[in-house]
Amino acid sequence: MTDPTPRIATSFARQGLMQTFGARLVSVHPGEVRIEAPLTPATTQQQGAGHAGLTFALGDTAAGYAALTLMPADVDVMTVELKINLMAPALGDRLEAVGTVVRSGRRITVVTAEVFAWTGDTRKSIALLQGTMIAVAPA
Amino acid sequence: MTDPTPRIATSFARQGLMQTFGARLVSVHPGEVRIEAPLTPATTQQQGAGHAGLTFALGDTAAGYAALTLMPADVDVMTVELKINLMAPALGDRLEAVGTVVRSGRRITVVTAEVFAWTGDTRKSIALLQGTMIAVAPA
Amino acid sequence: MTDPTPRIATSFARQGLMQTFGARLVSVHPGEVRIEAPLTPATTQQQGAGHAGLTFALGDTAAGYAALTLMPADVDVMTVELKINLMAPALGDRLEAVGTVVRSGRRITVVTAEVFAWTGDTRKSIALLQGTMIAVAPA
Amino acid sequence: MTDPTPRIATSFARQGLMQTFGARLVSVHPGEVRIEAPLTPATTQQQGAGHAGLTFALGDTAAGYAALTLMPADVDVMTVELKINLMAPALGDRLEAVGTVVRSGRRITVVTAEVFAWTGDTRKSIALLQGTMIAVAPA
Repeated sequence: MTDPTPRIATSFARQGLMQTFGARLVSVHPGEVRIEAPLTPATTQQQGAGHAGLTFALGDTAAGYAALTLMPADVDVMTVELKINLMAPALGDRLEAVGTVVRSGRRITVVTAEVFAWTGDTRKSIALLQGTMIAVAPA
Repeated sequence: MTDPTPRIATSFARQGLMQTFGARLVSVHPGEVRIEAPLTPATTQQQGAGHAGLTFALGDTAAGYAALTLMPADVDVMTVELKINLMAPALGDRLEAVGTVVRSGRRITVVTAEVFAWTGDTRKSIALLQGTMIAVAPA
Repeated sequence: MTDPTPRIATSFARQGLMQTFGARLVSVHPGEVRIEAPLTPATTQQQGAGHAGLTFALGDTAAGYAALTLMPADVDVMTVELKINLMAPALGDRLEAVGTVVRSGRRITVVTAEVFAWTGDTRKSIALLQGTMIAVAPA
Repeated sequence: MTDPTPRIATSFARQGLMQTFGARLVSVHPGEVRIEAPLTPATTQQQGAGHAGLTFALGDTAAGYAALTLMPADVDVMTVELKINLMAPALGDRLEAVGTVVRSGRRITVVTAEVFAWTGDTRKSIALLQGTMIAVAPA
């Protein structure tokens, strides 16, 4: 398998939302991708914690790229559907999303993602996602 | 019932993420809230369409405030879990999310949301959400 | 479009689980299928209400056949994923599931289903489902 | 902590649906419960595989009891919502569902479940579930 990292780094850099969030690609392995983003006033909900939309976006992006690592080089990936359970408020310095492939198919890939809030050196699991990615023709 | 609009407008204005997205509260009725936001380069995925995280964030916020319209005045609302099916790319001028209460309980409220992409005067349904909101003590 | 009813009635009759539940096909229209089954001691959970597995099975079957009404005659349908929110206990004489197509695609169809508990002439909504069906080759 | 097994075995025996499926409680540990049931003609879908409703029912029951192992002795458990991804057909001799607690709260517990199909000594993962259980007063 070719190293999927350059393809994913290029794709990640084109995501306007990830730029807006100040997110960065932490690691890319076959079937597992990590992304992180700072918690700032620009991404809060009404109580000052990180918005569920931020947590979802990071989990979705990590899970989608995890799926892409196991797909052929000439396809792109789209989210068919995704479900999130929010387990604790997004409080701390930054969020880290770990996307993982559960079952890779020719067209449909089942993924999970877990999102953690980091405060200094302490990590807390705040959300769990499960869903479906699909291989599509590139734009 | 007191008009829920001022409470929700105040809460909405405190959401950093909605400010970042340039979102605005379109309407507030008991059990139904509408929000919209422009589609801009700041919120794209890798192919230039709106990111699933944007679509989710708008649907989640509309659904959460729809739940809040039917809750007592002294509580706030949090998302327990939410599932999104993405039906078409988020392409056009702006997105509109319509959040609706399906069943309102003392603590748990079941909600749906539908997200539409507007191109000029044409509206296309692009996503459907279903999930659970919970009443919590305010921050 | 050919009347989809005979195809679905034949398929329904082959479902061992629907036979075990004493379920029957109530109606078949393009994009909407209704199924009902009695509430009996054979399908309870620990408190004597209908089991979530019964409610899910009826909603899943109604939604799958709703999807099949809009698919070509030479394919079968499978559930990719499905999410259920349970809103009230399954108490009464019988359950009715209404499956509806939200968006029909060449391969992937987005569906919802609502499940009602009937007590005499009174109907109560007890569950809401949302998910994804896929066209597959017949067995 | 008191051994949760007798409480769960008693509750399980009262589930009419589990009796109808010929299901049995395989093991009960704090935060993890296993259930299995044979694949028979009584629980098929239209192609002869196990029905998604069977797979869901076993996953739901295992996950619910996993949640109950970590709840106080004087409460019962109900499913708030649950999402299933079906990854392969339910073919073989029997299904085994493993329910696991991801985060246990005072009222709300986040759970996952995985369902496996056994053919002789070979086990295949066929479904993944994620959802929410709630503590309720006993009937």
